[in-house]
Amino acid sequence: MASFLRQTYGQRIQNHTNPAAKLLLETMERKKSNLAVSVDVTKSKDFLAIIDAVGPFVCLTHVDIIEDFDQSLVQQLQDLSIKHDFVIFEDRKFADIGNTVALQYSSGVHKIANWSHITNAHPVPGPSIISGLSSVGLPLGRGLLLLSEMSTKGALAVGSYTQEAVRMARAHRDFVIGFIAQRTMEGIGMQENTVNKDDFLILTPGVGLDAKGDAMGQQYRTPRQVILESGCDVIIVGRGIYGKDPGLVDEIRAQAKRYMEAGWEAYQDRVSAQA
Amino acid sequence: MASFLRQTYGQRIQNHTNPAAKLLLETMERKKSNLAVSVDVTKSKDFLAIIDAVGPFVCLTHVDIIEDFDQSLVQQLQDLSIKHDFVIFEDRKFADIGNTVALQYSSGVHKIANWSHITNAHPVPGPSIISGLSSVGLPLGRGLLLLSEMSTKGALAVGSYTQEAVRMARAHRDFVIGFIAQRTMEGIGMQENTVNKDDFLILTPGVGLDAKGDAMGQQYRTPRQVILESGCDVIIVGRGIYGKDPGLVDEIRAQAKRYMEAGWEAYQDRVSAQA
Repeated sequence: MASFLRQTYGQRIQNHTNPAAKLLLETMERKKSNLAVSVDVTKSKDFLAIIDAVGPFVCLTHVDIIEDFDQSLVQQLQDLSIKHDFVIFEDRKFADIGNTVALQYSSGVHKIANWSHITNAHPVPGPSIISGLSSVGLPLGRGLLLLSEMSTKGALAVGSYTQEAVRMARAHRDFVIGFIAQRTMEGIGMQENTVNKDDFLILTPGVGLDAKGDAMGQQYRTPRQVILESGCDVIIVGRGIYGKDPGLVDEIRAQAKRYMEAGWEAYQDRVSAQA
Repeated sequence: MASFLRQTYGQRIQNHTNPAAKLLLETMERKKSNLAVSVDVTKSKDFLAIIDAVGPFVCLTHVDIIEDFDQSLVQQLQDLSIKHDFVIFEDRKFADIGNTVALQYSSGVHKIANWSHITNAHPVPGPSIISGLSSVGLPLGRGLLLLSEMSTKGALAVGSYTQEAVRMARAHRDFVIGFIAQRTMEGIGMQENTVNKDDFLILTPGVGLDAKGDAMGQQYRTPRQVILESGCDVIIVGRGIYGKDPGLVDEIRAQAKRYMEAGWEAYQDRVSAQA
């Protein structure tokens, strides 16, 4: 079975047709970074301060927790994405029927499809969730990640659930660009002796250099474990980088640098490893 | 195995400690209605017009699709809930890790926990999603429904997923009051010869008197099928009642009456049926 895990991010651009997937890989290659920062704060001011401090290559947003959200915040986020050259990924975790997710994605206060290059969804409603989101996002050049696994204790995204998620993704390659998962999905849900022609991007939460977990069921692994051992492509780090005080700009920048270097080193070891 | 399916809604109040579950059952008994109306529209004006026309016993909201949402809309919704005596259920389908859902539930633009008696969540992240939501909702007297099944084609909430969802609910009876499901969950995930002491409320989407489905994977059953044959407690109806034009108040009211009568008749047949 062919593996995409030995290819560089730059080489993998050609494996994709979706504009958001290409943009993601180009940005990773250009910035030499596979670190995505998840900014889970409730105030616009903190949100923008953290993003400006980190200047990540991917910015994961959770605009649904921001209390003073308005469209001017979107404009400021977009300005920062140009200043720092990063991709925007609203971590919305859509999980409803096709008709509803299409409205949640395009409409509401947040109008996510208008400004977020990438978003994600749970496969639990079946393929209709992809059709619903795709009807809105594909014409705008957006990309979707499916949550085929979760990093929390007792998660139900395992076994046949994960396999079905991967099969759903393979059937929608134009819009589904990869997964939120704990490991590479190569070979998952495939019959033996089938040629693997689907290069999916794996973005992985639950990455920490220090903590082992939180009080609410989140469990952590190191960048080396997820990139080198498990074949993931992007490490997602949140509170591990910005801690509890969004005002500590130098500390946040130093932590981001530490994660960025750890993630990139693990990736370099992976692509240069003997097959 | 004892079944709660022969008890009236009024009799079942005593089986619950959660204030939202009691409120729901009291309201059903008082209004003689097991119809929940799901109002999936993007404009405040339409949203309020439909709710005022129907005067449902439960109002399912999707505030995340309303473009002109603000806190005054919440006030108007609450005023209507007093005028028409209904329970508010924001159909948010939370699906993230504990720390994030706690913020999504309490914060953001919508501040759902402040005004929605009931909300729902996918069990896919594991028990931490219940702890996260409970930390916000339980002190406010709110209740949670878990999505243990879905009505869409190819849904992955089946088999062991459904069983685990029910086990998670049994372990959190103070906050989890029931399920979004296609049938009663009595006996699901239980060992044989165990006494069933958990009276869960089953709210069921995908109910239609006319249509068989939509283009985006939703599939429909009749009120009689879901209440009498499958042991569900509440029928959730959306577009089947308000159609495409929120201005047709008389038509909406007539459709709501039709569903309400069909739902109540099926329930009466169930409680009066020979065991």
